[in-house]
Amino acid sequence: MMSNKNLTMLTDFYEFTMANGYFEKGMGNRRAYFDMFFRRVPDGGGYAVMAGVEQLVDYFKNLHFTEEDIEYLRGRGCFSEAFLDYLKDFKFECDVWAIPEGTPIFPGEPIVTVAGPMVQAQFVETMILLTINHQTLIATKASRITRAAQGRTVLEFGSRRAQGYDGAVYGARAAYIGGCQGTACVIADRDFRIPAGGTMAHSWVQMFDSEYEAFKAYAEIYPDNCVFLVDTYNVLKSGVPNAIRVANEVLAPMGIRPKGIRLDSGDIAYLSIKAREMLDEAGYSDMQIMASNSLDEYLVRDLLSQGAQIDSFGIGERLITSKSEPVFGGVYKLVAVEDEKGEIIPKIKVSENVEKITTPHFKQAYRFFDKLTGKALGDVLTLRDEVINEEQPYMLFHPIHTWKKKIVTDYVVKPLQVQLFDKGECVYECPPVEEVRQYCHDQIETLWEQTRRFENPQTYYVDYSTKLWRVKNALLEAVQ
Amino acid sequence: MMSNKNLTMLTDFYEFTMANGYFEKGMGNRRAYFDMFFRRVPDGGGYAVMAGVEQLVDYFKNLHFTEEDIEYLRGRGCFSEAFLDYLKDFKFECDVWAIPEGTPIFPGEPIVTVAGPMVQAQFVETMILLTINHQTLIATKASRITRAAQGRTVLEFGSRRAQGYDGAVYGARAAYIGGCQGTACVIADRDFRIPAGGTMAHSWVQMFDSEYEAFKAYAEIYPDNCVFLVDTYNVLKSGVPNAIRVANEVLAPMGIRPKGIRLDSGDIAYLSIKAREMLDEAGYSDMQIMASNSLDEYLVRDLLSQGAQIDSFGIGERLITSKSEPVFGGVYKLVAVEDEKGEIIPKIKVSENVEKITTPHFKQAYRFFDKLTGKALGDVLTLRDEVINEEQPYMLFHPIHTWKKKIVTDYVVKPLQVQLFDKGECVYECPPVEEVRQYCHDQIETLWEQTRRFENPQTYYVDYSTKLWRVKNALLEAVQ
Repeated sequence: MMSNKNLTMLTDFYEFTMANGYFEKGMGNRRAYFDMFFRRVPDGGGYAVMAGVEQLVDYFKNLHFTEEDIEYLRGRGCFSEAFLDYLKDFKFECDVWAIPEGTPIFPGEPIVTVAGPMVQAQFVETMILLTINHQTLIATKASRITRAAQGRTVLEFGSRRAQGYDGAVYGARAAYIGGCQGTACVIADRDFRIPAGGTMAHSWVQMFDSEYEAFKAYAEIYPDNCVFLVDTYNVLKSGVPNAIRVANEVLAPMGIRPKGIRLDSGDIAYLSIKAREMLDEAGYSDMQIMASNSLDEYLVRDLLSQGAQIDSFGIGERLITSKSEPVFGGVYKLVAVEDEKGEIIPKIKVSENVEKITTPHFKQAYRFFDKLTGKALGDVLTLRDEVINEEQPYMLFHPIHTWKKKIVTDYVVKPLQVQLFDKGECVYECPPVEEVRQYCHDQIETLWEQTRRFENPQTYYVDYSTKLWRVKNALLEAVQ
Repeated sequence: MMSNKNLTMLTDFYEFTMANGYFEKGMGNRRAYFDMFFRRVPDGGGYAVMAGVEQLVDYFKNLHFTEEDIEYLRGRGCFSEAFLDYLKDFKFECDVWAIPEGTPIFPGEPIVTVAGPMVQAQFVETMILLTINHQTLIATKASRITRAAQGRTVLEFGSRRAQGYDGAVYGARAAYIGGCQGTACVIADRDFRIPAGGTMAHSWVQMFDSEYEAFKAYAEIYPDNCVFLVDTYNVLKSGVPNAIRVANEVLAPMGIRPKGIRLDSGDIAYLSIKAREMLDEAGYSDMQIMASNSLDEYLVRDLLSQGAQIDSFGIGERLITSKSEPVFGGVYKLVAVEDEKGEIIPKIKVSENVEKITTPHFKQAYRFFDKLTGKALGDVLTLRDEVINEEQPYMLFHPIHTWKKKIVTDYVVKPLQVQLFDKGECVYECPPVEEVRQYCHDQIETLWEQTRRFENPQTYYVDYSTKLWRVKNALLEAVQ
């Protein structure tokens, strides 16, 4: 939806003051390396799901400044004319790499890396973070909720409570990547082919003189797609009996089976069990029961543990805003600059809080998979030019508690980042979103159950190669 | 940003199935009345701040279906050709009223009312809720945070953590309405004239060989706008001394005073007190101290209560997502339909949960102000055609505990809703956003301090007129 809009000016003001500053100081063309990474998984989970890469690619492709933008900036009175000229003829020249959408990602890994002229690599910070933080947040939440549903259908229903229009549309996209089967959001279907569906609201039922007449009218118009909303008056005394009556009177003569009923309030566990009995007794054991009342992964799990008879979940506000933790805290940090001779000088940002210390240098992230089980063994960050020979055993070690070691053999190793842009030219074709969704599903299967646990999961290994470890420690020593 | 986009298709799929259904049943042109209202204030606050009306107006103005939309809908295979023809020639014909942006609003009040052909009044539900829920959420949060700051400057810094692009831009707009003085978001400045500013990130400081050189370079380029970020290495040992040195060496010879320093990590209370001392001793008591590390109204209040020497706050993720409560739960419910004779038939939705019972009928909301103090005394919902005579005493009574009564005299009464659209024609001119911001500030001043309390505020009265009370009770009796 926003993909055909020019989002170049969606940035923090300091990106401009810094860009103009580098330009003015003659540093604008020095090559800088930035990583996007995050420090913790929302909701205390064991993994996050990468999402938003396609929109990021669109952003880079469209990056340019209009006359109107230049005029606006000139009006601010703090940018040089030479810089404004540069912006007028702006050509994106960076290299960009990212971990593909749908991949499980872990704290500390470079999920996006940008290398290019300082003035450009700095400027794109805000949009990289905004795009990836948002969609990754929602894809991660969707992964949790769909796993809680244990194979039952989960549909995203949250547009009306989203934080803005893009929040609704790209949220629906991210939720689909993370495991939802569809959405209620029409524009997400039209533009991204996220399957959209829906039948009736309470207002439909209220608009008729009786619930029976409302269901009857609906069945006459949409005999093939009857999901009756049964809680406008009284689920068990009125809603379910009227659904059965209309199924018998209107649909049965046409030889059509009703699809189901929807519960949107009350004690869903109790009501679904009772409704299931009534539907079964009436000969409608194939009618599905959908539930949709402020649910999330915890409530879904609780309902199922109480024997709720629910075939599909419609999840609204708690998914589309990731209500229990609505921020994905990705950051974008300088990790290296090139000197005049083209040598890469690693950079580190120290902090009293050790978790906030960055991992320096131009890096790659590799994932090790066990050859036999296909399970992910851990990730290793390396210097960019390091090669891992699968024929050789590889020693994983904890980057802080270095005595924690493990030698792996019989593994397959996969670089996680792929290149999106080469000197500003797009070299990546974004896969269709349903392919991303399948890939996500398959990749999450490679994680051990311990890592997928909702609470207190086993921490997945994100280790350093020996070379990277030495670089980081040397820089830390030098700072002291 | 989205205002020039066609958002017509940003809707829930069931809005289309219902619209087509009403159309097919020959009910499409029956006049229906819907209210948007909400049930509780986020964060347990005493009031919310209405926002998003300007974007809602834009949406209604642009409402139309393109050939591409029609084709998409036809492809879904469940809509009649007559309905698709209707959409092709769609002309918005509804009356719309809303409470103006910046007004304090309370649970149960009709904040938006739509009256028009059933097929249309139903269809616009999703966008009304999405637009108003989002901006009202952020304006309300901004009002809390700026009040906690007790007159100090509060800037919105959250774009990178927003839930999507619109979340960033319209979030910045809503935050400004709610009381922020500005934003870091450039596009919000360019498009909505929300003042944007910003100076440097840690990467600027890292990019130079030393912090001193980084500050010096900045001061040379932007002598008039020096806010030095002092926590890249060590605030008190390095950051503040370097800021003072550059102020002395670079700015003093130009006769320019530095603006201030920014703290973005560590113990802000302690560091700000110490930094204040150092700046004062160096003769820079006019340099301001800005703080910006995952703050919200609670942390701002705590910092100030601990004597933190902060002049301005940059608030990011906890404002732009309203992190502590990221959902504003507005709903859109049918309240009346007209019969064939044009008589308004009030409608009610009952629920086992009494809070979820709707208030029927086509209504107005009036706010009573004390003539002497100017303070708001309470709101009264009435039937639409009721007139309140300010010359007469008026009896307020609690709609459930009806024995709780209060007779008010010497009051001024103001209808809260204004008309936005008359039979589909826009009749409202949206005020400039800075005017809305001032209006918001003034209106919040009309609330008693008890209502403005952060926790456990006094519940503001939202009462019914006797006529409305009778209508509602008669309907409730009839349902039983």
